[in-house]
Amino acid sequence: MKNTFVLIAALFICGICTAQDVVEDFKPSSVNQPGKQYPQVNSEGRVRAQILAPEANNVRLDIGGVKYEMVKDENGVWTGESEPQDVGFHYYQLNVDGASVPDPGTKYFYGAGRWGSGIEIPADDRNIYALKDVPHGLVSEQNYFSEITQSFRRCFVYTPAEYTNNPEKRYPVLYLQHGSFEDETGWPGQGQANCILDNLIAANKAVPMIIVMDNGYAYKPQTSGGGRPAMVFEEVMLNEIIPMIDNRFRTIADREHRAIAGLSMGANQTMRICMNNLDKFAYYGGFSGTSNYPSSDEINVETFLNGAFKNGKSVNDQIKVFWLGLGTKEPEPFPGSVGAFRNMLEKQGIDYVYYESPETAHEWQTWRRSLHQYAQLLFK
Amino acid sequence: MKNTFVLIAALFICGICTAQDVVEDFKPSSVNQPGKQYPQVNSEGRVRAQILAPEANNVRLDIGGVKYEMVKDENGVWTGESEPQDVGFHYYQLNVDGASVPDPGTKYFYGAGRWGSGIEIPADDRNIYALKDVPHGLVSEQNYFSEITQSFRRCFVYTPAEYTNNPEKRYPVLYLQHGSFEDETGWPGQGQANCILDNLIAANKAVPMIIVMDNGYAYKPQTSGGGRPAMVFEEVMLNEIIPMIDNRFRTIADREHRAIAGLSMGANQTMRICMNNLDKFAYYGGFSGTSNYPSSDEINVETFLNGAFKNGKSVNDQIKVFWLGLGTKEPEPFPGSVGAFRNMLEKQGIDYVYYESPETAHEWQTWRRSLHQYAQLLFK
Repeated sequence: MKNTFVLIAALFICGICTAQDVVEDFKPSSVNQPGKQYPQVNSEGRVRAQILAPEANNVRLDIGGVKYEMVKDENGVWTGESEPQDVGFHYYQLNVDGASVPDPGTKYFYGAGRWGSGIEIPADDRNIYALKDVPHGLVSEQNYFSEITQSFRRCFVYTPAEYTNNPEKRYPVLYLQHGSFEDETGWPGQGQANCILDNLIAANKAVPMIIVMDNGYAYKPQTSGGGRPAMVFEEVMLNEIIPMIDNRFRTIADREHRAIAGLSMGANQTMRICMNNLDKFAYYGGFSGTSNYPSSDEINVETFLNGAFKNGKSVNDQIKVFWLGLGTKEPEPFPGSVGAFRNMLEKQGIDYVYYESPETAHEWQTWRRSLHQYAQLLFK
Repeated sequence: MKNTFVLIAALFICGICTAQDVVEDFKPSSVNQPGKQYPQVNSEGRVRAQILAPEANNVRLDIGGVKYEMVKDENGVWTGESEPQDVGFHYYQLNVDGASVPDPGTKYFYGAGRWGSGIEIPADDRNIYALKDVPHGLVSEQNYFSEITQSFRRCFVYTPAEYTNNPEKRYPVLYLQHGSFEDETGWPGQGQANCILDNLIAANKAVPMIIVMDNGYAYKPQTSGGGRPAMVFEEVMLNEIIPMIDNRFRTIADREHRAIAGLSMGANQTMRICMNNLDKFAYYGGFSGTSNYPSSDEINVETFLNGAFKNGKSVNDQIKVFWLGLGTKEPEPFPGSVGAFRNMLEKQGIDYVYYESPETAHEWQTWRRSLHQYAQLLFK
């Protein structure tokens, strides 16, 4: 009896503490659907979700790998909030009686292998990717049929604001790739690549450039013999995407005016593509990823990427900017594998730029900041 | 007792009938998320949805204004199907214990005032809007700041496949508007406007043209005096959108090379814009809507749209194609108001084209077909 009382008292006090801890300055998230008041975010970075589910027994907010219980009021409206989240964009879902569903209050984004809800925790540096009253480039959707994969594919192409009114001018190109379980909508969507470049170009901090954002998943058609289809993104990039872009857009079609970068899986892929094709690219950017992923072992330069980093001087001569970025809160294996890669670069005397995104993990805020940093160094 | 027996027997028989009526040839919908097997559609046009919701008490498929009960299996997976739906695209939701949520199996579309699920019932004429191996135009997203509304707005601009490789050539423009509770994503999304034009142009059935798809909702900033903000889409169209498009794209900037069309609310809006500005437009298309909506009363030509249709000969001289379309299954007030409008046109001796979309209602299949028909008559 006494124990029960203590337990109840403890729960009661704990409940009060929690309630008092939450700062009541919630505002609707900037990526809500038009007119939707929820989800909201407060100054601590807590997410408060709300959904009408009068017949439900259990509704949870599923964000950052944690499911937070929500509470029903007398009208059948469930409300609940998360612990503070890192600044920037996060994927999340609601869980209604065991069904994992998008929150009907938000716009939807492709990540974690699904179209689902997203939320934006305002960051102090949000101006770098905000939609501002500066000249805006176009983001153009290009459908194309791939002979290699025998399927329709799609890329988004950013052209800077001045592109349409300078019909004679040609532009350098950055090929920019998403991560695993994401697609070509990642960079122009939650990545805000167009806003980042619009703002940099308007401030004269980046050279006007074209950015091509394609889908990193590409497989040859399944053969009758079965087995896992071969991943052929490098082949699609070199033989289909680059020729198509050079044909349809006013590019400067040489290695000195072509950069390639990617995040996570895309960093891994684009490093291989870059180092295998130094006649095509002069700039590399790896955001939260390297091709030795997931290993943190010392890299054997004789064998790694067929010895691409064996001759440090040759790499320095050919790559104008070799750029790596990582969030300070990224989990293993990222710090370990990027660290091992940096050790190799240093041992080989290869010049590179290293950027750390403060207080962000393996998420879009790290990659927005990485693009913001990296783009300023290109084609100069 | 006897009555109860009859009732149970009747329900039992009815249950068997229903089960036997469903043709078991369901296939995943073409607008599912990558890799998602549900929802599915059968040859009757029934929609079968499925969702894991082990703790739920009641899950329903909410489509076409009807909520269909779904049934739980031993693994907590709910499955259920609708009555046959009309061919084409439909918005729908799932209802999990009273929560109306998007189906996690589909891509999401903006309509009915929300981002939500969509499903595609294959139509015999689906080739007109299918993504085919023909030259593909670009769909370009243009953000802009409106001085009139003091807000960021967005349009999508379709440029035909040949546009990028004919730097000297200029093109006519169709301004194409969505309906109520929809937005600028409607036509390039579920409307498949780009595919419709790609296919028509590849078959030499339509002149290569630019299509501009903007957002029909535009309000002046709320004044301190309160009250409902004024709707100013016409002002935005004339003073901001058209000048921006003529500046940024290679248009032929005269009335003979400018068409305007819209669906439902957009038909109503664009008819007003067209008739108020005959110095700007020479082609009009009204898909499932007219400016006398929702009235089916006889139109008074003296007062209707400030007498714009009073002089039939003048209208005939100025409008090269006056086009109206309607689905044969549309509910009132559409047939009534469009009918009253046609009566007025005929009384005034005004030439017009009238198209009926077979077996479709006030939905996107009617509007895809309307665009397919209308675009073939433009700029010839």
